[in-house]
Amino acid sequence: SRSLRLAVIPGDGIGQEVVAEGLKVLAAALPADVKVETTEYDLGARLYHRTGETLPDSVLEELKNQDAILLGAIGDPSVPSGVLERGLLLKLRFAFDHHINLRPGKLFPGVKSPLAGDPKIDFVVVREGTEGPYVGNGGTLRTGTPQEVATEVSLNTAFGIERVVRDAYRRAAARPRKKLTLVHKNNVLVHAGHLWTRIFEQVGREFPEVTTDYLHVDAATIFFVTQPERFDVIVTDNLFGDILTDLAAAVTGGIGLAASGNINPSGDFPSMFEPVHGSAPDIAGQGKADPTATVLSVAMLLEHLGFTAEAAKVEAAVAADLAERSGTRSTSQVGDALAARVSG
Amino acid sequence: SRSLRLAVIPGDGIGQEVVAEGLKVLAAALPADVKVETTEYDLGARLYHRTGETLPDSVLEELKNQDAILLGAIGDPSVPSGVLERGLLLKLRFAFDHHINLRPGKLFPGVKSPLAGDPKIDFVVVREGTEGPYVGNGGTLRTGTPQEVATEVSLNTAFGIERVVRDAYRRAAARPRKKLTLVHKNNVLVHAGHLWTRIFEQVGREFPEVTTDYLHVDAATIFFVTQPERFDVIVTDNLFGDILTDLAAAVTGGIGLAASGNINPSGDFPSMFEPVHGSAPDIAGQGKADPTATVLSVAMLLEHLGFTAEAAKVEAAVAADLAERSGTRSTSQVGDALAARVSG
Ligand SMILES: CC(C)[C@H](C(=O)O)[C@@H](O)C(=O)O
Ligand SMILES: CC(C)[C@H](C(=O)O)[C@@H](O)C(=O)O
Repeated sequence: SRSLRLAVIPGDGIGQEVVAEGLKVLAAALPADVKVETTEYDLGARLYHRTGETLPDSVLEELKNQDAILLGAIGDPSVPSGVLERGLLLKLRFAFDHHINLRPGKLFPGVKSPLAGDPKIDFVVVREGTEGPYVGNGGTLRTGTPQEVATEVSLNTAFGIERVVRDAYRRAAARPRKKLTLVHKNNVLVHAGHLWTRIFEQVGREFPEVTTDYLHVDAATIFFVTQPERFDVIVTDNLFGDILTDLAAAVTGGIGLAASGNINPSGDFPSMFEPVHGSAPDIAGQGKADPTATVLSVAMLLEHLGFTAEAAKVEAAVAADLAERSGTRSTSQVGDALAARVSG
Repeated sequence: SRSLRLAVIPGDGIGQEVVAEGLKVLAAALPADVKVETTEYDLGARLYHRTGETLPDSVLEELKNQDAILLGAIGDPSVPSGVLERGLLLKLRFAFDHHINLRPGKLFPGVKSPLAGDPKIDFVVVREGTEGPYVGNGGTLRTGTPQEVATEVSLNTAFGIERVVRDAYRRAAARPRKKLTLVHKNNVLVHAGHLWTRIFEQVGREFPEVTTDYLHVDAATIFFVTQPERFDVIVTDNLFGDILTDLAAAVTGGIGLAASGNINPSGDFPSMFEPVHGSAPDIAGQGKADPTATVLSVAMLLEHLGFTAEAAKVEAAVAADLAERSGTRSTSQVGDALAARVSG
């Protein structure tokens, strides 16, 4: 019998509720001979208020020995903005070198898009996860005075760009349409932008079968709402990827459905899977949250660990459930329905 | 008789065509006793290829003596990305301290939005225009090698943020709904983000009648497509404003209709008005471009120079034209129709 060591970080707000359903579906999907050893870590607002810590070193060490991490959501209004995001979520992404932040944008049949005319949407955003404006490099001078100056430094390396760009080309090459779009803002952010553009062209020579184009980030948002069907694979920087994937979630039926994987393809550290949505404190604890985004993140987790058939089963269960949705169901009703489909 | 010194920079691609229509409507709108002295400056790709210059010092000096600038569009595929943008367009915005980049997002009656369900959209984005990631501060190390590092530095000052935030509060206070939304990413870009947030709160104490809220930029893009009616006035940084205003243009019927003003309220330097769209080289010279965005930018120019009634007349002409649109018309047919409405 095989075993799978899974770290679970439910986090704040609706995190707890959606993660419970994700685990339910995971259990239903895995082959009988696979034993899941889950270790739950109580990180987030509660720990922060109790101890002032966001990610204790001992926890970081333990997490290194896990096969994967399932995360619910991080963030609470009682904690100053940025503390948990930088001290926990981004710390994990950077510590475990999650440089491939994978975010599908898919409009499932039966799901209503806010866009008119039922567009066909099926793309994936490969967001860089360990560089750019997210590095936390910056500071303030004359803090708190009318003369304050604040900086944010975007750091970009050829090494970091090349690996995510090559990953995106590989994904594009493996898809039927074989199309890859680079999104940046190279007419304004010329230093980083030209580095991205040059590497994008260089690596492209290894993939002559992939069609490429380039869009400025502002223009990309236009096409997301006017021509989303034009996209197949998109590769972009950390901040642009953050913005575009929320927009992608919106046009594909909302963040209740948007999954993500923070992936380190080397396997040196565990990859981490999480819904794109936040902790939604306004609806927390009421059983109202849609766990589908978490369940789809579980499908990505399965895929990442090599359980390809099981991942497909979970995605198919979600597709079937969405196609037949009617009325309101609670968080656990949705989870139960999905688990039943996966087992059935 | 009064006179108005207007610098005209048609620029590249469709710039020439749309500016011609903008001037036609301007002439039709102005009171008979106002003499317009236009000076045309041939800046853009042509000048760059001829002389290597983007904005000669002598031109910059002359522009200082103008009352306003009307700009068409800048950019051509024959010029490396960034050269004209940084060397001409952004140079003007920075040299003339255009810190209020004003961009209305309004869905006119009769205009089709890509969003389902005919939302009511009427907001204005007050984009900071002289700071943030647009300052051009950054560089590369080991350029062109596999070890290259590229940086982009976002510079933010209390001075620069306070003036744009106060301007946005004033605009919000003058509108019926009196609502102001700050958009940033203060959970990741904590240095700049907290400075924006603190100043937003401080200045807000002077405007108790204005309702405020805060959105992360990623969440803001979601609401742009799912609940655009929730926005009244938005204030945001230079880069987020760039992204959000293209998205705003998309949901309000396209960049063919999106106007903008690069405003220096002090009057020390001329303000500059331009459509949000680019030079669209693919349709240039064919009389296909919609000049409406330029005409609406002319309305903003009129408003800025104190011709309030005339500005309203131009906007009313556009509204009437859009409400009755059918079939395709050429660039000059649209301009003629608008000029006729304004004079009639
Ligand atoms: C919570 C926040 C730090 C995070 C990000 O900006 O990456 C979130 O928006 C996301 O997209 O996962
Ligand atoms: C052309 C480019 C430099 C410019 C910008 O990024 O500001 C444009 O996108 C705009 O929004 O006016």
